[in-house]
Amino acid sequence: MDLLSIDSLSDGQIAAILDRADHWFDRTRAGDRSDALAGRIVFNLFYENSTRTAMSFATASHRLGASSIALSVEHSSVKKGETLEDTARTLNAMRPDVTVFRHRDNGAPAIVAAIMDTPVINAGDGTNEHPTQALLDAATIRRRFGRIEGLKVAICGDIRHSRVARSNAKLLPRLGAEVRLAGPPELIPPDLPGSGSVDQAIEGADVVMMLRVQRERLEADLGDSPGEYLARHGLNAERLAKAAMNAAVMHPGPMNRGVEIEDRIADDPERSLIALQVEMGVAVRMACLEFVTGGFA
Amino acid sequence: MDLLSIDSLSDGQIAAILDRADHWFDRTRAGDRSDALAGRIVFNLFYENSTRTAMSFATASHRLGASSIALSVEHSSVKKGETLEDTARTLNAMRPDVTVFRHRDNGAPAIVAAIMDTPVINAGDGTNEHPTQALLDAATIRRRFGRIEGLKVAICGDIRHSRVARSNAKLLPRLGAEVRLAGPPELIPPDLPGSGSVDQAIEGADVVMMLRVQRERLEADLGDSPGEYLARHGLNAERLAKAAMNAAVMHPGPMNRGVEIEDRIADDPERSLIALQVEMGVAVRMACLEFVTGGFA
Amino acid sequence: MDLLSIDSLSDGQIAAILDRADHWFDRTRAGDRSDALAGRIVFNLFYENSTRTAMSFATASHRLGASSIALSVEHSSVKKGETLEDTARTLNAMRPDVTVFRHRDNGAPAIVAAIMDTPVINAGDGTNEHPTQALLDAATIRRRFGRIEGLKVAICGDIRHSRVARSNAKLLPRLGAEVRLAGPPELIPPDLPGSGSVDQAIEGADVVMMLRVQRERLEADLGDSPGEYLARHGLNAERLAKAAMNAAVMHPGPMNRGVEIEDRIADDPERSLIALQVEMGVAVRMACLEFVTGGFA
Repeated sequence: MDLLSIDSLSDGQIAAILDRADHWFDRTRAGDRSDALAGRIVFNLFYENSTRTAMSFATASHRLGASSIALSVEHSSVKKGETLEDTARTLNAMRPDVTVFRHRDNGAPAIVAAIMDTPVINAGDGTNEHPTQALLDAATIRRRFGRIEGLKVAICGDIRHSRVARSNAKLLPRLGAEVRLAGPPELIPPDLPGSGSVDQAIEGADVVMMLRVQRERLEADLGDSPGEYLARHGLNAERLAKAAMNAAVMHPGPMNRGVEIEDRIADDPERSLIALQVEMGVAVRMACLEFVTGGFA
Repeated sequence: MDLLSIDSLSDGQIAAILDRADHWFDRTRAGDRSDALAGRIVFNLFYENSTRTAMSFATASHRLGASSIALSVEHSSVKKGETLEDTARTLNAMRPDVTVFRHRDNGAPAIVAAIMDTPVINAGDGTNEHPTQALLDAATIRRRFGRIEGLKVAICGDIRHSRVARSNAKLLPRLGAEVRLAGPPELIPPDLPGSGSVDQAIEGADVVMMLRVQRERLEADLGDSPGEYLARHGLNAERLAKAAMNAAVMHPGPMNRGVEIEDRIADDPERSLIALQVEMGVAVRMACLEFVTGGFA
Repeated sequence: MDLLSIDSLSDGQIAAILDRADHWFDRTRAGDRSDALAGRIVFNLFYENSTRTAMSFATASHRLGASSIALSVEHSSVKKGETLEDTARTLNAMRPDVTVFRHRDNGAPAIVAAIMDTPVINAGDGTNEHPTQALLDAATIRRRFGRIEGLKVAICGDIRHSRVARSNAKLLPRLGAEVRLAGPPELIPPDLPGSGSVDQAIEGADVVMMLRVQRERLEADLGDSPGEYLARHGLNAERLAKAAMNAAVMHPGPMNRGVEIEDRIADDPERSLIALQVEMGVAVRMACLEFVTGGFA
């Protein structure tokens, strides 16, 4: 059983993963350990730099008693011109129990998964999907609000290049949320139509999820300085005041403070769920590792 | 007990390693785990990029219950000008149970092993040797044919720069195989005389092992385009037709498709042992890790 | 309980760590293992290249049964412009049991530790401190001499840029040693006044600890060739003859042979404690990992 896209999960599977993530979240806070995957080997293959996701999966693997073997792009045969298919055949022949795979090309994890006999988890592929991020976002929202159904979630920023936005735009509506995508017009792609301006998206929203804008895009695509971007499309106090009374703020990280989000909002302990997202991320990945290797006990 | 070269292994040791590799191959396929090396620490030091060998040794270590600590060249003191001998003294003082060592200089693992008190496994040194690759090739051939004795093995391509060819040229004849080395004349070194052209080497061969040709060498040393190389020295259907009836195809990877090997041959499930080599590679390395740390139970 | 600076340790804690290091040193030599930290997760974050310290902490973690998750600078969000504080919040939310942290900026581990709820060990910050190195140096000296009290320790070389010198200049006097810092005038900082020339510092010293001089500094700051540096400020036989009768030689590594230290001195088995430092380093880090996670059983 692979986990490549939100589309590949049934509603029942999504609910089970979210419930199991809550279970691991609570057990981890209680200091419990598990050996649910003792003796298993998890390949952590990141063909694109990552801090938080790579560490999160490695931590999740170890919390379940599994071994984690990491490979980063610098050591890869990619440079030697090996095809992705051949890399997948090689990995498959080593018989890992799970392969966590990040790649800058859309669809690369699906190509790998089609070849491998054992499960593959998409840890982010290009601008396509990042399903475990969407699952952790959903789990975080549910943890805060007790529900997802009926909530208004504004996802704002560089929608065009965001696999986080794409996965959330699939997942959250299935859980009953209203998702509003917004950002600079240049960063709204045709296949993910926006809901007007950032101001309009935030109006009355229960959750405001800000996306990272790469500094290179600021100048090249937008012609904005960081301050200009923040003023026009970022999350500042004035804009957040238009959201619902107890609106929560999310960000998949790493944050560009002073660009897409104002310091004091990122640091507001009442509003910000950013650290909770990271903590829930490990719990969700524990659930996902269990899920793909045979489900929950 | 180190494992630095095929020369350092007795016939009995080679036979024992191959038998043990078969044992681990079968047990792994059956889903078994082992804690034969539980609590042991394996240093995986690759002073040269590697995907498959580094992952293979790490996987083998974990399958035996050992811990694997990886260091890649980017983090090394090499850049700071420390001598190899001082690096070896440092590693030795940390008392690993095994040190797996790859280096671009011929003889570097032997220098390290001469200093270290605990076993060193040569994971490939320059153009010298790659003994665990030859052992896995032998184990793979035996798995396919039930024997090695009497088989004709053509090893074709860049013999000059191939530690795989060198180790196999030592090992396979000791196991009773006839080894034929062939490639472009520019890539046949004086100390490893070829057996004529690639066509002649393949004639009647039971095993055709193709070696990677680095793309840089194609232009610089040979003046060939990839297509020209394939036509003149690579493995295509026409050339393979001259081999023995049930000839098997091998490649240590990573493959340059369309250069030293034609796509449909690499992918022919009847002929290609390439994935089997990788799978056997983990099993052989499990056997080697056991062997150097005290032999088999 | 963090371990950020020698200053943060009480005399009793220092004594306990040194005793515990001796315990682990002996147990490791006896081939014993421990599961004192079984199931614990140690983050090894090196935002600056390292061979020996990263391997040493990883080895120490595994010897205690803990899992070690390594992150090197190449994979970090640092490049993406995330603040150190945000990185710390992210790491904290993953709930590691210990975070070992090296960074090129003075004070960075303290910033991280102020944010994290779980212990942080400073594995070297800029030119500030490297407390576990000073602890292993003290443990090594005590192992050799049976005491530290009353010994004269000359620390020679690039004092200005040496966190090793800074931590030792704090620790060793607290243990009763007389520390003499010396080096080229350009490399003696105002806050760490030297004790005259290298010759004067070595005169009658029981321990001569030589520090690495970066080759770039030789030309840029000093205008010396390696040979000139060795003659003027390095440790050669003539200079060592001025030390106490059974003086021992130390170096935190990696050594620049022929620059700050002459080959035959580095390799003198009677004098050199350099390998002992590395071996003791693992034992000290085992003690430190135990110490920060709750002390010794």
